Amino acid sequence: MKITVLGSGFAGRTLAGGLADLGHDVTIGTRDVQVTLDRTDPDRMGNLAYAVWARDFPDISLAPFADAASDADLFVNATAGAGSIAALAEAGKANLAGKVLLDVSNPLEFSQGFPPNLFVNDTDSLGEQIQRAFPDTHVVKALNTMVGDVMTTPKSVAEGDHSVFISGDDPAAKRVITELLTSFGWIDIIDLGGIQTARATEMMVKIRLLVMTSLGTPIFNFKIAR
Amino acid sequence: MKITVLGSGFAGRTLAGGLADLGHDVTIGTRDVQVTLDRTDPDRMGNLAYAVWARDFPDISLAPFADAASDADLFVNATAGAGSIAALAEAGKANLAGKVLLDVSNPLEFSQGFPPNLFVNDTDSLGEQIQRAFPDTHVVKALNTMVGDVMTTPKSVAEGDHSVFISGDDPAAKRVITELLTSFGWIDIIDLGGIQTARATEMMVKIRLLVMTSLGTPIFNFKIAR
Repeated sequence: MKITVLGSGFAGRTLAGGLADLGHDVTIGTRDVQVTLDRTDPDRMGNLAYAVWARDFPDISLAPFADAASDADLFVNATAGAGSIAALAEAGKANLAGKVLLDVSNPLEFSQGFPPNLFVNDTDSLGEQIQRAFPDTHVVKALNTMVGDVMTTPKSVAEGDHSVFISGDDPAAKRVITELLTSFGWIDIIDLGGIQTARATEMMVKIRLLVMTSLGTPIFNFKIAR
Repeated sequence: MKITVLGSGFAGRTLAGGLADLGHDVTIGTRDVQVTLDRTDPDRMGNLAYAVWARDFPDISLAPFADAASDADLFVNATAGAGSIAALAEAGKANLAGKVLLDVSNPLEFSQGFPPNLFVNDTDSLGEQIQRAFPDTHVVKALNTMVGDVMTTPKSVAEGDHSVFISGDDPAAKRVITELLTSFGWIDIIDLGGIQTARATEMMVKIRLLVMTSLGTPIFNFKIAR
């Protein structure tokens, strides 16, 4: 498939790399290509600069949001939550119309430091905000409850024996994303219902960041033991 | 230990029964003993009326909140979240002073139906509200991320291979609760930090109720796979 990943940060590039490894034709969308390429130092989380990372993925192209979006079959929103709707607007409502959008973002706001708070929660969600802003796009929330590496390589944790949740209003779009997740190696895929159920998974970011601090590593995931 | 469980609902009585089975001297506190004993029909969740349940636990006494609290070594708050602070006030600030309070409640409000919303979340928690209202009591939040049966019988799910979180400001109180959890059979006890971290576990109630709907059973739990 031709897949456009919006967002060149850690989650976006990890997903892009994982999708390219599966044979998909991947483009990463970013706000300003030159700014993204000009960075050379690792970010404050210690992640490699984009240009350094990209040396290992010569087949992945980088383009401004609108160009990246022009002819994709499937979209991934991996932009920072606070900028997601603006980034998607730049990608273009018409480009996104009728397409499936896998939304892995979380509505984080860091004004009070770490752990961040959520700029929307409980009675609304970023997933729903995106669905309302782009009503002709089929938004499916998934993978937003774990760190990037675990998204594309579930086997890196407990031999893959843990869970991923999906939320979305369109059954066909959820089947597309379920197939994609399966191709990454996901086995326990729990369908929570409509996009409104994204409220619940976005609210899990708080426990995830605390567990990360407690364990001293982001490499873990939630499993629904039963 | 002499343990007072505040709340005669499903979670309270399950905890009371589990604690009595471990040999503790357990009293259940309720608002109005006669009202609680006069009920004969199952509640809307299908749980037995208190008096029917209590036949199997003749050693557990039932008392008004204040009497139940008068000489306990340890307290459990298993009242409905919306009524917790009022119930604890009835139990008596002086009775609770200097004592450890295991708080298993969640700040649920059902005005919008199911799944419920939270009447406090993200930037505050019911655990913190209780700690602020009873500053001389050592509040430890735990067990609020699962249904009653799983709290006292972790082996009933995946042979006990799943996780419980604890939050609290007092290290000695957390050691008391950790010991209590261990006596129930808990192995993976994750200390998240101070009582402020209760925000994260209270926010998990939303995903728990959706997973319950998706699986068709409340008998499951979160495991931190790593």
